[in-house]
Amino acid sequence: MAVRPNISIKKREVLSAQEIFKNLIVGKREWLSKALTLVESTRSEHRKTAKELVQLATPFSGKSIRIGITGVPGVGKSTFIESFGLEAILKGKKVCVLAIDPSSEISKGSLLGDKTRMDQLSTHSDAYIRPSPTSGTLGGVTRATRESILLCESAGYDLILIETVGVGQSETKVHSMVDAFLMLLLSNAGDEIQGIKRGIMEMADILVVNKADGENQRNAKIAAHQLQQALHYFPLGKSGWAPSVSTMSALNNEGVSGLWKKCTEYIDHIKSNKFFEQNRKLQAVNWFKQSLSEQIIQRIEQDEEYKKKLSEIEEKVAIGKLDPFIAADLITDFYFR
Amino acid sequence: MAVRPNISIKKREVLSAQEIFKNLIVGKREWLSKALTLVESTRSEHRKTAKELVQLATPFSGKSIRIGITGVPGVGKSTFIESFGLEAILKGKKVCVLAIDPSSEISKGSLLGDKTRMDQLSTHSDAYIRPSPTSGTLGGVTRATRESILLCESAGYDLILIETVGVGQSETKVHSMVDAFLMLLLSNAGDEIQGIKRGIMEMADILVVNKADGENQRNAKIAAHQLQQALHYFPLGKSGWAPSVSTMSALNNEGVSGLWKKCTEYIDHIKSNKFFEQNRKLQAVNWFKQSLSEQIIQRIEQDEEYKKKLSEIEEKVAIGKLDPFIAADLITDFYFR
Repeated sequence: MAVRPNISIKKREVLSAQEIFKNLIVGKREWLSKALTLVESTRSEHRKTAKELVQLATPFSGKSIRIGITGVPGVGKSTFIESFGLEAILKGKKVCVLAIDPSSEISKGSLLGDKTRMDQLSTHSDAYIRPSPTSGTLGGVTRATRESILLCESAGYDLILIETVGVGQSETKVHSMVDAFLMLLLSNAGDEIQGIKRGIMEMADILVVNKADGENQRNAKIAAHQLQQALHYFPLGKSGWAPSVSTMSALNNEGVSGLWKKCTEYIDHIKSNKFFEQNRKLQAVNWFKQSLSEQIIQRIEQDEEYKKKLSEIEEKVAIGKLDPFIAADLITDFYFR
Repeated sequence: MAVRPNISIKKREVLSAQEIFKNLIVGKREWLSKALTLVESTRSEHRKTAKELVQLATPFSGKSIRIGITGVPGVGKSTFIESFGLEAILKGKKVCVLAIDPSSEISKGSLLGDKTRMDQLSTHSDAYIRPSPTSGTLGGVTRATRESILLCESAGYDLILIETVGVGQSETKVHSMVDAFLMLLLSNAGDEIQGIKRGIMEMADILVVNKADGENQRNAKIAAHQLQQALHYFPLGKSGWAPSVSTMSALNNEGVSGLWKKCTEYIDHIKSNKFFEQNRKLQAVNWFKQSLSEQIIQRIEQDEEYKKKLSEIEEKVAIGKLDPFIAADLITDFYFR
């Protein structure tokens, strides 16, 4: 079965949200693809239908486990997802793979684009892989991704893997929409860890030193051990979970069942202490507040006169001629004049 | 000389911003106190004068080094500031100590309140210590602190130490207004580090294991060494500086001149690679944007009908009945109806 059937919304095709939804909810893949194309579209008539569709799907969503996967290019994400996804299917899951890659238009580096590394998963009937939308702002792309999660869930997928290529703020965005955050790392010849990004490691619940194969196996194990020691310096987050470091060879499919077990342990942990539920609630309210504030600011900035004033004032702030707070007072008063 | 002369703005006293400013700029301490009381006030007529004053002072500000100091209660912050501040004075600095403690009304735990631990510094003619305003929201208190920095700088202080008691978001706020962020830690008997807070350590440029005295000296040195090793797992931030870990006994005044040297090295480093300048610019623009967005949202929320609608919708988002983005659309449309 093709990964992304060549279905697009034809120019004159008028699909109603109800029609898409009733096909989506019974698990028809091609309709899921149509639905995702719709939420990725920026055309206003598509946005309108997409919003109706998301509203229909919301009550049927939420019953999956959402795992974010991050790691620098070269860490072996595609091979990892192939191996991890197939393991999850073995355990009875229906797996959906999404990606956030606001940069893909420029870098063309999105690993999810490279289906050849995921040939078993991508053709499996219990898996659905959706490449990242190839354009758009981070805001637009993350909204589309979050809406895609809901649609995939309502289509019956109960494990959602969300890959980030780790550009800019995309990790933070992914972290704010998942239940578990998994970070892939590498060890180099000198048993040092590669691929750690400042401010990202402390978001990880599960760390995996990948490519623990061949001559690299010993180094990977030493590196993982050292990293685990270093993690002692970081107090537990609100989930009360002590992040664990595993090694794995996605290539040789070694360590994947242990990793799956670790993920299950983590999910059981946060479900039993209610963090799972609280976190989802908090995530939803945060997305709401952030989106509201962005939308209001965007709408206000449509006022040309306001925008001109804003850039004048901002320049003065940047060169230290105007205090930031006083500048903010000035602009606020100007807007509500 | 008294730390905080018993000068308040008398009820009928009408002080103009110009009058305060001309006394402030020539370094009259009692007028600095008057000025700081003004920026801490929430009364609207005081705010008006405060804003004028800040506008007058802004061009004369910015020439100091701003250092944030954090650490959990019990880490010895007051004793540290006494020792570090006196060392800075020895090196020719005029030192001003400010604090952010939005919780002080409740906890009464602000170390800056405890002058007895800073008796030399608090009476030194080259030092000025200002306790945290004892009430207000974090937003209000941080604005007052940032404005206080400008006023102290225009009054001739060229080293500003800003203490945070480490409650809630106060570290992040302090971090966003300083050039260097210094974190105090402790070692316990088992040579483990105490006082690390999740998400805070990676903001630190300089880490100090305090209370390295008596029997604790050896443990402190081991702990500092181990922490330095653990820091290798974190890539450098934008400043390109590798954070260093020192030990110190503020009580016995040991290690303070080495620490002062380390701070100087850091500042030299970021001045020579231009990070100092870029960071200040970025901080100013960020404060501006954040304050603007907060003010606009606040002003909008004065609309009672809007506020009612908002809380209704937010509840639906929290219980998963409404998608956060669609909820934000609804509220935005409602406001601009």
